[in-house]
Amino acid sequence: MGNTLKERNLTMLTDFYELSMANGYFCNGIGDKITWFDMFFRRVPDDGGFAIMAGLRQLIDYLEHLSFTQKDLEMLRKKGFNEDFLSYLANFRFSCDVWAIPEGTVIFPGEPIVTVRGPVIQAQLIETMVLLTINHQSLVATKANRIKRAAGNRSIMEFGSRRAQGYDGAIYGARAAYIGGCDATACAIDERDYGVPAVGTMAHSWVQLFDSELEAFCAYARQYPAQCTLLVDTYNVLKSGIPNAIEAFRREVLPRGFRPQGIRIDSGDITYLSKKARKMLDDAGFPDCKIVASNSLDENIIRDMLIQGAEIDSFGVGERLITAASAPVFGGVYKISAVEENGVPVPRIKLSENVAKITTPCAKKVFRLYDNETGKALADVVTLFDETIESGKPYEIFDPVFTWKRKTLENFTAKELLVRIFDSGKKVYNSPDIKNIREYCAAQVDTLWDEVKRFENPHKYYVDLSQKLWEEKQKLLSQHSVKDR
Amino acid sequence: MGNTLKERNLTMLTDFYELSMANGYFCNGIGDKITWFDMFFRRVPDDGGFAIMAGLRQLIDYLEHLSFTQKDLEMLRKKGFNEDFLSYLANFRFSCDVWAIPEGTVIFPGEPIVTVRGPVIQAQLIETMVLLTINHQSLVATKANRIKRAAGNRSIMEFGSRRAQGYDGAIYGARAAYIGGCDATACAIDERDYGVPAVGTMAHSWVQLFDSELEAFCAYARQYPAQCTLLVDTYNVLKSGIPNAIEAFRREVLPRGFRPQGIRIDSGDITYLSKKARKMLDDAGFPDCKIVASNSLDENIIRDMLIQGAEIDSFGVGERLITAASAPVFGGVYKISAVEENGVPVPRIKLSENVAKITTPCAKKVFRLYDNETGKALADVVTLFDETIESGKPYEIFDPVFTWKRKTLENFTAKELLVRIFDSGKKVYNSPDIKNIREYCAAQVDTLWDEVKRFENPHKYYVDLSQKLWEEKQKLLSQHSVKDR
Repeated sequence: MGNTLKERNLTMLTDFYELSMANGYFCNGIGDKITWFDMFFRRVPDDGGFAIMAGLRQLIDYLEHLSFTQKDLEMLRKKGFNEDFLSYLANFRFSCDVWAIPEGTVIFPGEPIVTVRGPVIQAQLIETMVLLTINHQSLVATKANRIKRAAGNRSIMEFGSRRAQGYDGAIYGARAAYIGGCDATACAIDERDYGVPAVGTMAHSWVQLFDSELEAFCAYARQYPAQCTLLVDTYNVLKSGIPNAIEAFRREVLPRGFRPQGIRIDSGDITYLSKKARKMLDDAGFPDCKIVASNSLDENIIRDMLIQGAEIDSFGVGERLITAASAPVFGGVYKISAVEENGVPVPRIKLSENVAKITTPCAKKVFRLYDNETGKALADVVTLFDETIESGKPYEIFDPVFTWKRKTLENFTAKELLVRIFDSGKKVYNSPDIKNIREYCAAQVDTLWDEVKRFENPHKYYVDLSQKLWEEKQKLLSQHSVKDR
Repeated sequence: MGNTLKERNLTMLTDFYELSMANGYFCNGIGDKITWFDMFFRRVPDDGGFAIMAGLRQLIDYLEHLSFTQKDLEMLRKKGFNEDFLSYLANFRFSCDVWAIPEGTVIFPGEPIVTVRGPVIQAQLIETMVLLTINHQSLVATKANRIKRAAGNRSIMEFGSRRAQGYDGAIYGARAAYIGGCDATACAIDERDYGVPAVGTMAHSWVQLFDSELEAFCAYARQYPAQCTLLVDTYNVLKSGIPNAIEAFRREVLPRGFRPQGIRIDSGDITYLSKKARKMLDDAGFPDCKIVASNSLDENIIRDMLIQGAEIDSFGVGERLITAASAPVFGGVYKISAVEENGVPVPRIKLSENVAKITTPCAKKVFRLYDNETGKALADVVTLFDETIESGKPYEIFDPVFTWKRKTLENFTAKELLVRIFDSGKKVYNSPDIKNIREYCAAQVDTLWDEVKRFENPHKYYVDLSQKLWEEKQKLLSQHSVKDR
């Protein structure tokens, strides 16, 4: 009995239409047609300049453990599915190729972040979980990174489990928040299962259980003298909470040879209170005692508090991080890009009256070009699958809409972003340790110019198409424009 | 290997501070002190007039299966927890009393929706999961009910799995959406595990896999002649999608003795397109063919579409329902209300500079008073645990802040809302079938006056305190006001 994706079977966590189509493909004898699908997204939440890729580890666990149980087949039988198709599902073996951008990487709209190649039944069936997994964790990692950047060198603790959207919202949300830059979580299960440091001290109820606040503080300090952080706002922060905390530190922490760790303020005008608290603690001889703030925080409130001089060392951020409340959807989509005929991918396009919703056809690759002098990322280029971009060799990029906007890059290093994860259904990639993913993420964010990292009106990073890919797309567009308009 | 809460162990899905406190209570010899906790919420999301209770079934499953594994204890040992406390956890047996308002009931701010009485270690430990479970499902049920009301007698299908916040966000979100009034879900696993009807037909990729749209439609119609709904916006809705759908209905559906079920429009100006589509289908002899709309819908867009005369029979609602995007947090809190001394509950209060954050002390009950003439709900009254309100006997209610605002109710039936769920750790309640919960919910919403159901500026439903409870609260407030201000 466990909770990781290796111990659960989420094969049936799929939109029912994937199954309807799979049954239909099977019965039409085209279930094994080899198709290419891309996951990509169209807009960065909160109008930010970039997003953070996360969730790949769980996607791999899911893909490795795909299998239909008797119970699943019974349900589908009742729905009227073909018996031969049910036999196929009973013997289901995942055999797709999968490429993905590693977790912690900075990602941009319009580029493939996961690519799947394989029999259409399979490639289609996994759509829901590919999107659900990557959309959720990328959403929270991206939000966490905003909050961490707002806090500068102060630490951020993820405190949102109780307001998360479901258990996995809490668990994988805390994991993604850590990847995005949070320093710890309140969610205990995340330390056990995912190695995210779990922290937490006391609720108001601890204080209320004792006959007085001072008694409650002293009891806690005796119990945890080495890590004594006291919650000071149960009754009155300045008149009762902080004086009692100072008294408890003196009575129970110092005599045991420790220094007090901190106080936490969870309500009221925290900016004002923190400044008063800082002075009271300093005057009492505890300039090293940290001040922790919590209570409906997000990146905007944190910035505002710091601008107003709040004396806060650490922020506990709850519901607005774990639900990414200001923009709670990461809108990744999964679209067919090619169908193989005699082993050759034939491109497919989805048109739309809304130009932004037209897909980019063809089997593809993505390159990121880093400036050799500054180390900064200059542009991403989406190419055909058999193209390559050579580091150092002059390369002309151009705007895919305003094609006269052109620029030749010279002194750069090109890095391919999509990494092979499954080869014909066999896993060929091992996820790094989560601490490494978090460090890698911070380093990747450092390759962005400050202009891309702005909260307001960030500079639009270039995500261009190679000349060949651009031409293929134009060709398909003009074919369809004749037929359908 | 399964996914229900009976098959997973989420005991460690708790904020770490619950464990820090539990260890501290244990070591201070007060772990068995009997405490009373209430879950309640302060504001209805989207400034609505009421919310829908949901999630109790999963909360029960969790509480029934609380147990610590060796792996959990090892982790806590490394964190420095007391060995005797770890032995206590190894032999943990849940022994609390729990009361809750049944799923599907209309609930209001300020009243207890879950009450827990038991040893403080236990009552505290479950805080995170009580809140997480009820907050999540009540959020989505409340949102679904708004969307269903906006759609009137048209049906709503929940389509959001791919944009949900984690796997449980999708799974339990679909369950909650069904309770709140949705008619079906796209999420297949919900039919298998929770009895929510799962539906779904085709994606754009189905159309793109075939050499032409007509061929794709005919193949689908042959496969599913009895339930043939075709997605008509892959290329061009009016010039290609609908004419091809009509042709496919004629070629493949009618000859098999069926009528076409519907068409779905997923992009473009759906209101405009639906009117044109209706006319084309009617002219073709298919006035019974339904029109389904999807694409970033919510209650406001649905209302607007209907006001503009959209000819839509069924809405597929995705990300904005499953994440409750316009207000993605249900802010339930869990607060201590009393500590027993010699078997008598002694009230506890949490003060705050923010008056709305002051808690209501004491062990409590909640009564809903229904008008005997109209059947409508008149007011909820929160009383002391040993009080009762007798149906029919005149009862004076009053505003707890503006206490001169009074009203005497006479011809009413009083119904106690909190139902006993666990008696000393033993489950004494069985959750109804989900279809019954859904029907009960619709009936409960019908007991509200239209004024409470408005989207804009709804009438504030009365949630009052009994005279005795009000006096207890005032007493505690004045005690603390002397000490702390």
